[in-house]
Amino acid sequence: MFHHSSKLQFPVRVEKPDPEFAMLLQQAIGGVEGEIRVAMQYFFQAMGARGDARIKDLLISTATEELAHIEMLGHAVALNLEGAPVSYQEASAKDPVVNAILGGMNPRHVLSSGLSAMPVNANGVPFDMSHIYASGNIAADMLANVTAEATGRVLATRLYNMTEDKGMKEFLSFLIARDTMHQQQWLAVIEDMGGLSASLPIPNSFPQSEEAQEHSYYCLNTSLDKPLPQGRWCQGPAFDGVGEFTAKEQPDILGEEPNLGYARPGSGAQSEQMGGSVPPTLKSEP
Amino acid sequence: MFHHSSKLQFPVRVEKPDPEFAMLLQQAIGGVEGEIRVAMQYFFQAMGARGDARIKDLLISTATEELAHIEMLGHAVALNLEGAPVSYQEASAKDPVVNAILGGMNPRHVLSSGLSAMPVNANGVPFDMSHIYASGNIAADMLANVTAEATGRVLATRLYNMTEDKGMKEFLSFLIARDTMHQQQWLAVIEDMGGLSASLPIPNSFPQSEEAQEHSYYCLNTSLDKPLPQGRWCQGPAFDGVGEFTAKEQPDILGEEPNLGYARPGSGAQSEQMGGSVPPTLKSEP
Amino acid sequence: MFHHSSKLQFPVRVEKPDPEFAMLLQQAIGGVEGEIRVAMQYFFQAMGARGDARIKDLLISTATEELAHIEMLGHAVALNLEGAPVSYQEASAKDPVVNAILGGMNPRHVLSSGLSAMPVNANGVPFDMSHIYASGNIAADMLANVTAEATGRVLATRLYNMTEDKGMKEFLSFLIARDTMHQQQWLAVIEDMGGLSASLPIPNSFPQSEEAQEHSYYCLNTSLDKPLPQGRWCQGPAFDGVGEFTAKEQPDILGEEPNLGYARPGSGAQSEQMGGSVPPTLKSEP
Amino acid sequence: MFHHSSKLQFPVRVEKPDPEFAMLLQQAIGGVEGEIRVAMQYFFQAMGARGDARIKDLLISTATEELAHIEMLGHAVALNLEGAPVSYQEASAKDPVVNAILGGMNPRHVLSSGLSAMPVNANGVPFDMSHIYASGNIAADMLANVTAEATGRVLATRLYNMTEDKGMKEFLSFLIARDTMHQQQWLAVIEDMGGLSASLPIPNSFPQSEEAQEHSYYCLNTSLDKPLPQGRWCQGPAFDGVGEFTAKEQPDILGEEPNLGYARPGSGAQSEQMGGSVPPTLKSEP
Amino acid sequence: MFHHSSKLQFPVRVEKPDPEFAMLLQQAIGGVEGEIRVAMQYFFQAMGARGDARIKDLLISTATEELAHIEMLGHAVALNLEGAPVSYQEASAKDPVVNAILGGMNPRHVLSSGLSAMPVNANGVPFDMSHIYASGNIAADMLANVTAEATGRVLATRLYNMTEDKGMKEFLSFLIARDTMHQQQWLAVIEDMGGLSASLPIPNSFPQSEEAQEHSYYCLNTSLDKPLPQGRWCQGPAFDGVGEFTAKEQPDILGEEPNLGYARPGSGAQSEQMGGSVPPTLKSEP
Amino acid sequence: MFHHSSKLQFPVRVEKPDPEFAMLLQQAIGGVEGEIRVAMQYFFQAMGARGDARIKDLLISTATEELAHIEMLGHAVALNLEGAPVSYQEASAKDPVVNAILGGMNPRHVLSSGLSAMPVNANGVPFDMSHIYASGNIAADMLANVTAEATGRVLATRLYNMTEDKGMKEFLSFLIARDTMHQQQWLAVIEDMGGLSASLPIPNSFPQSEEAQEHSYYCLNTSLDKPLPQGRWCQGPAFDGVGEFTAKEQPDILGEEPNLGYARPGSGAQSEQMGGSVPPTLKSEP
Repeated sequence: MFHHSSKLQFPVRVEKPDPEFAMLLQQAIGGVEGEIRVAMQYFFQAMGARGDARIKDLLISTATEELAHIEMLGHAVALNLEGAPVSYQEASAKDPVVNAILGGMNPRHVLSSGLSAMPVNANGVPFDMSHIYASGNIAADMLANVTAEATGRVLATRLYNMTEDKGMKEFLSFLIARDTMHQQQWLAVIEDMGGLSASLPIPNSFPQSEEAQEHSYYCLNTSLDKPLPQGRWCQGPAFDGVGEFTAKEQPDILGEEPNLGYARPGSGAQSEQMGGSVPPTLKSEP
Repeated sequence: MFHHSSKLQFPVRVEKPDPEFAMLLQQAIGGVEGEIRVAMQYFFQAMGARGDARIKDLLISTATEELAHIEMLGHAVALNLEGAPVSYQEASAKDPVVNAILGGMNPRHVLSSGLSAMPVNANGVPFDMSHIYASGNIAADMLANVTAEATGRVLATRLYNMTEDKGMKEFLSFLIARDTMHQQQWLAVIEDMGGLSASLPIPNSFPQSEEAQEHSYYCLNTSLDKPLPQGRWCQGPAFDGVGEFTAKEQPDILGEEPNLGYARPGSGAQSEQMGGSVPPTLKSEP
Repeated sequence: MFHHSSKLQFPVRVEKPDPEFAMLLQQAIGGVEGEIRVAMQYFFQAMGARGDARIKDLLISTATEELAHIEMLGHAVALNLEGAPVSYQEASAKDPVVNAILGGMNPRHVLSSGLSAMPVNANGVPFDMSHIYASGNIAADMLANVTAEATGRVLATRLYNMTEDKGMKEFLSFLIARDTMHQQQWLAVIEDMGGLSASLPIPNSFPQSEEAQEHSYYCLNTSLDKPLPQGRWCQGPAFDGVGEFTAKEQPDILGEEPNLGYARPGSGAQSEQMGGSVPPTLKSEP
Repeated sequence: MFHHSSKLQFPVRVEKPDPEFAMLLQQAIGGVEGEIRVAMQYFFQAMGARGDARIKDLLISTATEELAHIEMLGHAVALNLEGAPVSYQEASAKDPVVNAILGGMNPRHVLSSGLSAMPVNANGVPFDMSHIYASGNIAADMLANVTAEATGRVLATRLYNMTEDKGMKEFLSFLIARDTMHQQQWLAVIEDMGGLSASLPIPNSFPQSEEAQEHSYYCLNTSLDKPLPQGRWCQGPAFDGVGEFTAKEQPDILGEEPNLGYARPGSGAQSEQMGGSVPPTLKSEP
Repeated sequence: MFHHSSKLQFPVRVEKPDPEFAMLLQQAIGGVEGEIRVAMQYFFQAMGARGDARIKDLLISTATEELAHIEMLGHAVALNLEGAPVSYQEASAKDPVVNAILGGMNPRHVLSSGLSAMPVNANGVPFDMSHIYASGNIAADMLANVTAEATGRVLATRLYNMTEDKGMKEFLSFLIARDTMHQQQWLAVIEDMGGLSASLPIPNSFPQSEEAQEHSYYCLNTSLDKPLPQGRWCQGPAFDGVGEFTAKEQPDILGEEPNLGYARPGSGAQSEQMGGSVPPTLKSEP
Repeated sequence: MFHHSSKLQFPVRVEKPDPEFAMLLQQAIGGVEGEIRVAMQYFFQAMGARGDARIKDLLISTATEELAHIEMLGHAVALNLEGAPVSYQEASAKDPVVNAILGGMNPRHVLSSGLSAMPVNANGVPFDMSHIYASGNIAADMLANVTAEATGRVLATRLYNMTEDKGMKEFLSFLIARDTMHQQQWLAVIEDMGGLSASLPIPNSFPQSEEAQEHSYYCLNTSLDKPLPQGRWCQGPAFDGVGEFTAKEQPDILGEEPNLGYARPGSGAQSEQMGGSVPPTLKSEP
């Protein structure tokens, strides 16, 4: 069950409203690097978590915190939209030189939301829930979570750089700090389960004897004119504690040239694809 | 520049065509865990890679291999659709007892593609390119890649379990093996760059002095009735070599209750939101 | 700020797991009539609410309850997936007669989520956040909310009819009851603001003198062969307390035939669209 | 059957073309508040209307009018794009000071449509038909229609405010007027069917005895630190003529803590989720 | 302006309702090969048509006919859903042997539309308006229209083959006939404008002297192990009356290896990408 | 199998980076007229090609070239983003007069990709794979390909016109040239198969005796106030060598008015739709 208390987790102040920055902030709400994504991802992972109950608890607890982050960001967007133009007169007064009367803000912040946040990204594209990764495999999910927090923190630092508003900088420095924690929190779950070595290859429950192990540890070069770049990926022990990385400088081509043959009658193809040209009579008589 | 050779990377044989399995295989083509995703993700990451040129080369080389995986899967789908019904007579002959004449296959494999693969997932939902994660931050991108390969291998093992066709099992065991490598290959890039400790927090180029570090290393409990689960995430050194994990059993609520005040005239809100009720005259006279 | 407690708002029991019913239940999670939609809609409306603070509080309070509904439904889906087949052997054992080995369940409940809920509808289409209606106009938003609860209750009763599982029926009867309340709760907000008469036309803050009032109260017939159906919509006082409904049996056509003239050079149109045919020389010489 | 006549329903004149306003107008074509939405929504509702034939006729008649509104808006967009730059020289001539050569217009109005309307919103996001609400329940559908017209009129008044072009203002004042009517027209259908009291709860055909009526009429507070706001929603008779609103200041938590137990072998989870750690041998031997 | 008359363009009769066929028919409504697509595509092309007014008139006239096709298909879907199960009892009575109680029908035809048509395809994916091709170039648009009618007729013949219902076959034979006409109608527009030779290359208004004509007429082989297949595409005069097709057996590689260099400070990349490793001090001090 | 070589197919040089032009170029990558579309479309058509193996080879060969076009465009975008602002200071320094600090560029080129290309169009909308047309009918597919190349070349000429950068103009003149070839290459396949006459109507394998041929060759006027425009489309022989075009000045209306009757109990409709009004008792008693 969820509950709410009325104050925000951290102060959200805007010294000088900036409708263009409101548009940028939307990426942290409705972008794939944003807070709806992590809130919902942790929520769905929690609802499907099997095994160690601690992880489920950690997921739902953090999902709840992320909901509070959406709440702060939604407010931050609205505060930055204070003073945004809602009429031609206001808009054109701002920039007499330019014909871009809205000055880079998202026009739907006027037209559709009436100066409020929307669940869209900085291009106005709505968030879509296919980005909620919850695979039922806890190690894969933890990696998806680290990734989400990594791209989330990259985004937050870019937003931090794109404003000079002191209130916004403080608020973003809080979000950046929480992302610092959350990146490592999900890595800690993997360590708690025995570390990467025990977890790899994901899923570790599939018997590796059934995979084609002769293809499991070489780094493949598909370049025609450059050798494989040298690095850890083509030498040394694999991280799963089983294999040894090697380099294969060009693919073994083991398959045949595919050939689907003719199309079947009734399949909607052209007659030519069925192995014959079209006799003129076919077209007008049965 | 790309080039093509006519044979498949690995043999793709189907002993007994199964249109329902063709539908399942689509997840490995057009699902978020699938091959279009990794091919395009590595391709876009390569095109934006700045810094160490080896990583760029590795990305484009692997992108190219993933294109070959799409090619094999596309063929595997078509082969499984051999014999799928294209007429009511064929369809109803198969299952006289049931009214589900298509027997669980994707109807668009008949209606839209004429017994061929489509860039859709197992629900027929087309792949959308918002899933191509290429952030410009190499560590974040590597984690996204490990995640993609982890969910990809989870998917491939599930597909392996859902067929008894020997040809398909061999083919999938090859894909599983390559996913084993690719998961670790991208982790190897991180190790090559100094390991997780040097990379975290991502981005490591943002001066941590500007983040609100007092919030950077506690694991937050938002539960009202359970303590934070004990584990590596709330104790011990953080993985970035800087902080120390601690547990905070309940949020400090530092912000205020948000209040946006009244709506502005001309913003399309109701009059009541502007601080007044609507005088009857307003509605019919200016 | 949000908080969580560990127990579900209402008991969720499944007597006999049914993977096909799990697929149906997804509509109540990720469908446009579902709980993600209302939770997020009320949340975004609350974050943008200007004016009467009571409405904002009611919105966030109900958003929080809807999050708890997602939580129950996610659990209900997972429980119905207990026992769903994860291998060909299990799957084909169930229905020896049929070739539809998955028997109508969503294949991605095996392939992508590992027997857990996903934020998708009953067709596997992910929820997309463009369905979050939060216009900044409180009356429009309340109507959107009544609509969401109306379609939500219609859906819940259809799900109730499609199961015979006693646990699921009890759970759905709870959701149906809450929808009964929520439909009327949002209507109560409109009544509290003075009722429909005071609220209409929405937005009531736009001076009606600026609208073309001669077109504001007739019901228009565009049929060529039937008169306008008789009913309240073409007679009697309008509900906004201003106009009187009338019937207009055929449209006054007041405009002209549109004509955009020729295309401009450099606009990428065909030469013919620019008022000339293409001289042969144009194509090969500048 | 549909028919067309060559003149527009209302004059569409543009005194001074404004490519940025063309972009804004797109919201009224391809936005969720726009005319494609209502045209298609009424059309699909009509095609599925069961029961009183008058409502079906009213729906198709109004759908037809809305098609004519798309037609006018499409023309309005094209007229506002007259004179938009199609070359770098034209574009940069306009705003020598600024580097935003397109001045806030939608670049795809040059690149993709050649100075014509597109079925997209003001952010360039294409309309998607999941927004066509047609539930088969006439009361739910009428509420969806009132909502669409309410948000539609809010949008139209915002557009009206964002232009000073006299031709555009007249045209928009016509659309605003029709929205005034259409909002109330769909409410009139509900009144014609006996009013809200007879219609609620929607669907009114589900026997309320089967819903958990003890949960049907309380307004639930989920806030930890504020009481439920006082208002019509927590007292007085419900609008369905059955219940009486009450306030419940905190949720009864009736369910248990969910627990899905261990993952099943073969389900693609990690071994740890299946109740055991991975023995090193499992990974390399069957 | 649009108008409506009450009868359907062609009789729509269903002898034996078939809910699974209703699902298949949806592809002709909301699929990319379907009628919403052509109706809207011709409508938007008409609204943007510049130049010869006859083409604009032909477009709007045919758009109107396509609206009537949607109308018939919507009815056909609803008639096929007569008798579809709306309760578990009805559903399970049908197929006592199978657990797929809905027997291959779209579950949302029960849950979301109440036995009516929806604007979705045969997988339940909603139509999205990005498929409306209206480029502002009349020749490109005509080709898009021929394509739409070609895939439309392919679809209609596949549907024809998938039913044995006499009413549905007659109805589909009508749609197939109209597609026969419409394919050729749009080709006739190209012939009327001077034929393909005059139209190519599209757009024919761009001076070919500005294109890199040495690359304009060779067919390029990118295969490493097969020669270019012989055919009309690599020999003989080009269809634009300008060039002559030739074969180029392998690409001239004219460009350099791309190299973006280092990432910029402040861009959110890793320090390593900026040309340095991360000094430990950077992370905790500014 | 695919392979890669390290140099670009054609030189990509940018004389003066222009972040706004980077945004425009995105249309050629991720727009429906762009290179991802053609690369993937030819790839999927190749994987499903049945019949003449030459066409399959031509498809995969050209798909491979299109991948190289994506590669060049991705680089072109990144080069145009060199120097784009990544901080408020840089951004506001550029345009002291304006408040649009990003000057028309795509903000996600800073926030999400770190100054690199993304698989999105010029509005930032991600490419979605539903645009990959691969019908299994070779003639329909060739027309789809000609269309794609026609809109692709229209787009490329518009981009050419929107820049004055000499490097970009040279690069675009190369793409324009290749589009000139590719348009005609796919037409050459149709000619090779016997020309349009042999191919039409598509699919030519459906016996025309089963279509309602009395409706196959008339051009239908649906206008109430204008005659059908005169042109090749309403007179002369049809292009399939079978019919003769005629004009039908108004539709024969052959169908009946549709009537779905009452809704069924249990279907979630209102009681009124089921043929009765709601007795007050129904609502509270079973």
